[in-house]
Amino acid sequence: MPQPKLGLITSSELALFMDYYELTSTKADFDHENDAVVTQEYFVRSVPFGSYLIAAGLEQVIAFAMKLRFEEKDLGWLEATSGPDFRNGFLDFLMNFKFSGDIYAVPEGTVVFPNEPIINVTGPTIEVQLLETYLLNVMNYQTLVATKTARMVDIAGERTVVDFGARRAHGRDAALLAARAAYLAGATGTSLVLAGKTWDIPFIGTMPHSFIQNRPNELQAFREYSASFPHNTILLVDTYDTLEGVRNAITVGKELNEQGYRLIGVRLDSGDLADLSSKTRKLLDEAGFEKTKIFVSSDLDEYQIEELIREGAPIDGFGVGTRLVTGANYNPISREGGVSALQGVYKLVERIGKDGHPIPKTKLSVGKVLLPYRKQVHRQTDENRMFYRDTISRWDEVIPDAEPLLVPIIQKGVLSYKFPSLQDSQQYCRDQLRQLPKSYRLLIEAPVFPVKLSPQLEKAASSN
Amino acid sequence: MPQPKLGLITSSELALFMDYYELTSTKADFDHENDAVVTQEYFVRSVPFGSYLIAAGLEQVIAFAMKLRFEEKDLGWLEATSGPDFRNGFLDFLMNFKFSGDIYAVPEGTVVFPNEPIINVTGPTIEVQLLETYLLNVMNYQTLVATKTARMVDIAGERTVVDFGARRAHGRDAALLAARAAYLAGATGTSLVLAGKTWDIPFIGTMPHSFIQNRPNELQAFREYSASFPHNTILLVDTYDTLEGVRNAITVGKELNEQGYRLIGVRLDSGDLADLSSKTRKLLDEAGFEKTKIFVSSDLDEYQIEELIREGAPIDGFGVGTRLVTGANYNPISREGGVSALQGVYKLVERIGKDGHPIPKTKLSVGKVLLPYRKQVHRQTDENRMFYRDTISRWDEVIPDAEPLLVPIIQKGVLSYKFPSLQDSQQYCRDQLRQLPKSYRLLIEAPVFPVKLSPQLEKAASSN
Repeated sequence: MPQPKLGLITSSELALFMDYYELTSTKADFDHENDAVVTQEYFVRSVPFGSYLIAAGLEQVIAFAMKLRFEEKDLGWLEATSGPDFRNGFLDFLMNFKFSGDIYAVPEGTVVFPNEPIINVTGPTIEVQLLETYLLNVMNYQTLVATKTARMVDIAGERTVVDFGARRAHGRDAALLAARAAYLAGATGTSLVLAGKTWDIPFIGTMPHSFIQNRPNELQAFREYSASFPHNTILLVDTYDTLEGVRNAITVGKELNEQGYRLIGVRLDSGDLADLSSKTRKLLDEAGFEKTKIFVSSDLDEYQIEELIREGAPIDGFGVGTRLVTGANYNPISREGGVSALQGVYKLVERIGKDGHPIPKTKLSVGKVLLPYRKQVHRQTDENRMFYRDTISRWDEVIPDAEPLLVPIIQKGVLSYKFPSLQDSQQYCRDQLRQLPKSYRLLIEAPVFPVKLSPQLEKAASSN
Repeated sequence: MPQPKLGLITSSELALFMDYYELTSTKADFDHENDAVVTQEYFVRSVPFGSYLIAAGLEQVIAFAMKLRFEEKDLGWLEATSGPDFRNGFLDFLMNFKFSGDIYAVPEGTVVFPNEPIINVTGPTIEVQLLETYLLNVMNYQTLVATKTARMVDIAGERTVVDFGARRAHGRDAALLAARAAYLAGATGTSLVLAGKTWDIPFIGTMPHSFIQNRPNELQAFREYSASFPHNTILLVDTYDTLEGVRNAITVGKELNEQGYRLIGVRLDSGDLADLSSKTRKLLDEAGFEKTKIFVSSDLDEYQIEELIREGAPIDGFGVGTRLVTGANYNPISREGGVSALQGVYKLVERIGKDGHPIPKTKLSVGKVLLPYRKQVHRQTDENRMFYRDTISRWDEVIPDAEPLLVPIIQKGVLSYKFPSLQDSQQYCRDQLRQLPKSYRLLIEAPVFPVKLSPQLEKAASSN
């Protein structure tokens, strides 16, 4: 009997993670010897929420660019299935493919704004084009999740935010990459064990409701759990009646105390969390469990976290699932939203002409801005190191008293950047958010951060 | 220098694709010798759009259940990182883990409704619990995408619907599984080459805008492309001015005719698609290109497809990306939505007591219905084979003149189901949709399909 197929992507299949048009158009490039050096840039035209984005996903893009090879079996399959037009020297050319160009990018965790180049890729046309689908896939998703998480972490302040979303993520990669992007943007940890192992992220868990349902009563379930995890007892109290559950947790907490352990926390997963957390805190405090923490979860997002905090709910940590891993784009005030995706694009902006001079590239479709030429972003800070203004310029333009954001990652096909640990990137991201003035971090109606065009770029953009 | 990490999941890491609470709670089960046979069921409490769902993802769930093993290196890592409470015989037990239970499910492509069990898993507590995160992840996503796609395909009628979403999908798995689920639900093909190879799905592509920008003018770009793909020339006409692009395509079409080939189609990717497609059709027809097809794309979903068709736009095929691969949940009438995830759950419903009798399991959290006992769904059809009524019953209950929907997939750990090809599943899904009366397929305000409870289940549910 044929076995069911898991559909795991193996590293040898990376080369086929491409929209077919990348292979058809580069085949036509090959046929017509179009090997001009070009620059394509990754940027996002508009932010789905708030004023800023947290760039995330670069490490995976670079791993792809470094590892991308076409194998004989893949090319054989392509030749066999793509019809008569695909049979020529192009497939031999792909056999020898290795990315030889330059990639500049903002480090992961950097605060960026609409229309700013986040990655620019320069090299022979075919090489630059073949990175497109993967680059967009991984940058759009991780940047979305990192941005969404940063908003939650920012509003949560000292309280923890933990990714609980694996079951609602769009496939395994999404669960894994969401945990990564969330941690980068300041989450405390994840529920997904594999993410913990892959990225060295703290992983966290209590018990499912079924664990309690599966026993004669809640008190026995709590006793069995605490006996197995005396060092780390967090009890889920909402299976039947939340406050009764808290009383059962207190009973078990006292038994733990007698054995020299303590009740770390309780978790509420349903109901009116503001009201229930207050009543839970009161019950715990009255019983002497002032240090026992209250964790909550239940379809949370940054708006609900903000509301709970505003109402004074005594919550120590938030577990967020669906709306974190999908980067749910929904504005509760305007009741607008609905597309959980970042619409980032990877556009041709410059081509080096035969005379060695750069030729600007734009596209004239209605309503879609495309700034010509290979570009750099320069950031200016005020006397308190707060972000003050960005300037997008042509690549080699000098902008005084400003820091260029795009740094060299790959040069002539060779990795020249040392990726920080995810922990270091998290610290960098935290610093970035601290440097962004508070008004730009408002959950709703944040003003637009001032991003201006350099004189040279202004001239080029207006002449197109 | 340490190399950037791709973060690909390998099959040996499947066992760690779990929320940590699965491992803590099953460790406590192990400690307390809780090995009762239980049933957990996967179902969806509410549909994000419309009245029905298309079940999808079973093949991946079953592959996971069959292949799930814990390896020594994973368990060693777990022991080293999970603190003192994890060190006991549980890890040895996991070393010998192999799913030995029963799985029943509705075939992929089946039309199902809220609260109906889609999969039920019966076996020892620990085995049943450990499937949770993966099962939810893969079923929630594929069912969401299949359902979204079915709505588009249904409204598109004879016109083609192709998945273009890899760049906006949430990671690589999402792109791959979306192509699978979309094809299952009636899409014509995908842009993603790897999905084509993995699932034997037709893959389709034209050219990116950069291909045209990268040449002195559009006409030359079209000529070069058609020279490379004379058997399959589809030209993207909206880079600069759409109707001028159509005129250039006609010029190239005439040149193709002279060489014995023909212009297959043009693609519009921006602007007022109803107006532009009409003008394009007129230009093509006047030049004798009546057979040249018009394909469109541009942030489409079922509502926009419906509107274009209602306006009489002469469109032959739709490329849909973001809103297909994210299963975008947005109602353009009520302007509500925003969470692109299916909130399916996997709940404990029955436990076999020591006396061999089933004990019903429910949970009392406010507002969340949980029907007790292991269950079956029975479907009744009318004299025209149209779906008429479903009945959810206890597992062994006989419902006359009705077809049970959940069929055996794994029995005592052994695969007993022959998975159909994806092509056969597509045909099955098409037949299912044809049997669903049209009112239940309305895009908005579809009525609720009649799903009743059997007498025995009604009694059990009301006594809880």
